[in-house]
Amino acid sequence: MNSIEWNRQALILLDQTKLPVSEEYIHCTDWRQVAEAIKMLRVRGAPAIGVAAGYALVLAAREAAAQGDRDEQFTTFFEFANTLKATRPTAINLAWAVERVCALVRTSVTIDGHDDQTVSLADCIDRIEEEAIAINKEDLALNSAMAKAGAGIFEGRRGLRILTHCNAGALATAGIGTALGVVRELHANGQLSMVYADETRPLLQGARLTTFELHQDGIPVTLLTDNMAAYAMQQGLIDAVIVGADRITTEGDVANKIGTYGVAVLAKAHGIPFYVAAPYSTFDFTLASGKDIPIEIRDSREVTHFQGCQTAPDGVPVLNPAFDVTPHEYVSAIITEAGVLYPDYTKSIARLHKEVQER
Amino acid sequence: MNSIEWNRQALILLDQTKLPVSEEYIHCTDWRQVAEAIKMLRVRGAPAIGVAAGYALVLAAREAAAQGDRDEQFTTFFEFANTLKATRPTAINLAWAVERVCALVRTSVTIDGHDDQTVSLADCIDRIEEEAIAINKEDLALNSAMAKAGAGIFEGRRGLRILTHCNAGALATAGIGTALGVVRELHANGQLSMVYADETRPLLQGARLTTFELHQDGIPVTLLTDNMAAYAMQQGLIDAVIVGADRITTEGDVANKIGTYGVAVLAKAHGIPFYVAAPYSTFDFTLASGKDIPIEIRDSREVTHFQGCQTAPDGVPVLNPAFDVTPHEYVSAIITEAGVLYPDYTKSIARLHKEVQER
Repeated sequence: MNSIEWNRQALILLDQTKLPVSEEYIHCTDWRQVAEAIKMLRVRGAPAIGVAAGYALVLAAREAAAQGDRDEQFTTFFEFANTLKATRPTAINLAWAVERVCALVRTSVTIDGHDDQTVSLADCIDRIEEEAIAINKEDLALNSAMAKAGAGIFEGRRGLRILTHCNAGALATAGIGTALGVVRELHANGQLSMVYADETRPLLQGARLTTFELHQDGIPVTLLTDNMAAYAMQQGLIDAVIVGADRITTEGDVANKIGTYGVAVLAKAHGIPFYVAAPYSTFDFTLASGKDIPIEIRDSREVTHFQGCQTAPDGVPVLNPAFDVTPHEYVSAIITEAGVLYPDYTKSIARLHKEVQER
Repeated sequence: MNSIEWNRQALILLDQTKLPVSEEYIHCTDWRQVAEAIKMLRVRGAPAIGVAAGYALVLAAREAAAQGDRDEQFTTFFEFANTLKATRPTAINLAWAVERVCALVRTSVTIDGHDDQTVSLADCIDRIEEEAIAINKEDLALNSAMAKAGAGIFEGRRGLRILTHCNAGALATAGIGTALGVVRELHANGQLSMVYADETRPLLQGARLTTFELHQDGIPVTLLTDNMAAYAMQQGLIDAVIVGADRITTEGDVANKIGTYGVAVLAKAHGIPFYVAAPYSTFDFTLASGKDIPIEIRDSREVTHFQGCQTAPDGVPVLNPAFDVTPHEYVSAIITEAGVLYPDYTKSIARLHKEVQER
């Protein structure tokens, strides 16, 4: 099962809102369909959103190149790009992918610091597509690198019981996943005993997606409601927590799916290490403190209704932040494709940044 | 709305599994219907189960008194009582109410330490009914006493934001509730700003019942998923946590709805006081450590399906403990009808026990 596939004409997305009951695919030939899919969480997970956005920009460029004069075409393209970027505010990978492609377009039409009028938007389309494919392929490769780096933390240990929250797996990336990539590596090494998957209300990504992809791959998984994580820790069932991330600041504060912060506090209270697995594209080098990360507030109906079933009386006010921020003091280590980062994060993240810049 | 009503012929129960979408009542004329209602959580909440059990024993006595000879009748009655008592294992109030009524029956047929053959089970029916009504009335009165005692903790404070978990309200008792009784008193005193209600997966008693009864009474309430409690605490939205209890040991360890322990750990980490409101009948004077409290494990379908909607793939293993135990070190105080108990709980609970015994 591939959750994201590009056939040069269309972006084919597995509609994750329909899992686990049915496997339906959407064929996106318009960038707006991709934007809608991102907004409605048909495609979700920070890295996967980045990959989808890359392809959406190919579709956007094709459309923009077919209307108006040269300057209008570029203006329209960058407008489309900005609209796409604003679809979801918290995951930085979306903005990162859009900016990466836009920067490429800007470079393509610039010669000696000036606008090269001989280059049209149509001329850029192939390069945009190459870049989108590159983002996709890179994600695949860095998932594998992260998995190896993460498994290294547990060298020599067996029978591991790992708790995870939300879905940071194959469904959230183009590859084997971030947190679940590490889990897959541990399983391949014979070191894994059980994955405990928080169901992750309100949208149940843990119940619907994490158990789905692990069960399908024959990796032992047990589902629990979010409020059972503390019980599982108290009963000695959990050796480590591994989660993904939607944005990480230069101080190591981590935005991730709502509920992650609570799991981190509980892990610390029980002496259980709390690991975050995320690629370089998840780091926001413009922010130091997690307090400055914008938190997406979503529709209250996600909490009061489940697949059409009403769970609360009409008119009851609801809190529905889609993410929370785990301060760095709760994070035991951050697993990246370039190795495992430990505190002091300000130093280790700066080192990562420098390494990648110098490549 | 009365969730439990006795009309001398039948016990009328509000079917809480149907809330908040519809208000349906069940007329129980057979004690087995009451047992089924307890098992299926149509009536739930430790004190309410105790009250319902009292009336169920009236129905059980009427049935038993109509078949066989005198000794067979008593044997049948006590068998019925034992079956009823075993319906749910964690909440001690159920066992407490059944034992209270059974003790009364035993006393009624005993004279000078011997079986008084002149007293039939039929002769006991009126006294059983009086006792059931007494349990009901006492619950009403002690809810009010608890509410006053609990509000006393917050004397002189206004604008209070209280987080609660599950439903420890009018729907869980015969009166105004335990935790929500305190909340109602604070609201009546003009001291309450907001109740934050954890939805309480898997059966959503917070979403379905707590928001329902508070909203109906015009008490400000905001619904959040269980995994948002940590976020709310981090954002400074919570001044105190108040929950009910299903069983409290002599050392002050508290069994309550699954997820309570996690809330307690989070409250401690954020310097937020964690209060438990429960009547005398919730204390188990035979147990010292919470580790010895039996925890009911319920059907995995409660986690994998919601009102017929499937949330997880078929065949995925599930953890579904209905309760957890919060060790006494996380409990700031226990609010009872006889006043507020503080640590050292071994001493303060022993004092409570002595006081009640000497009444």
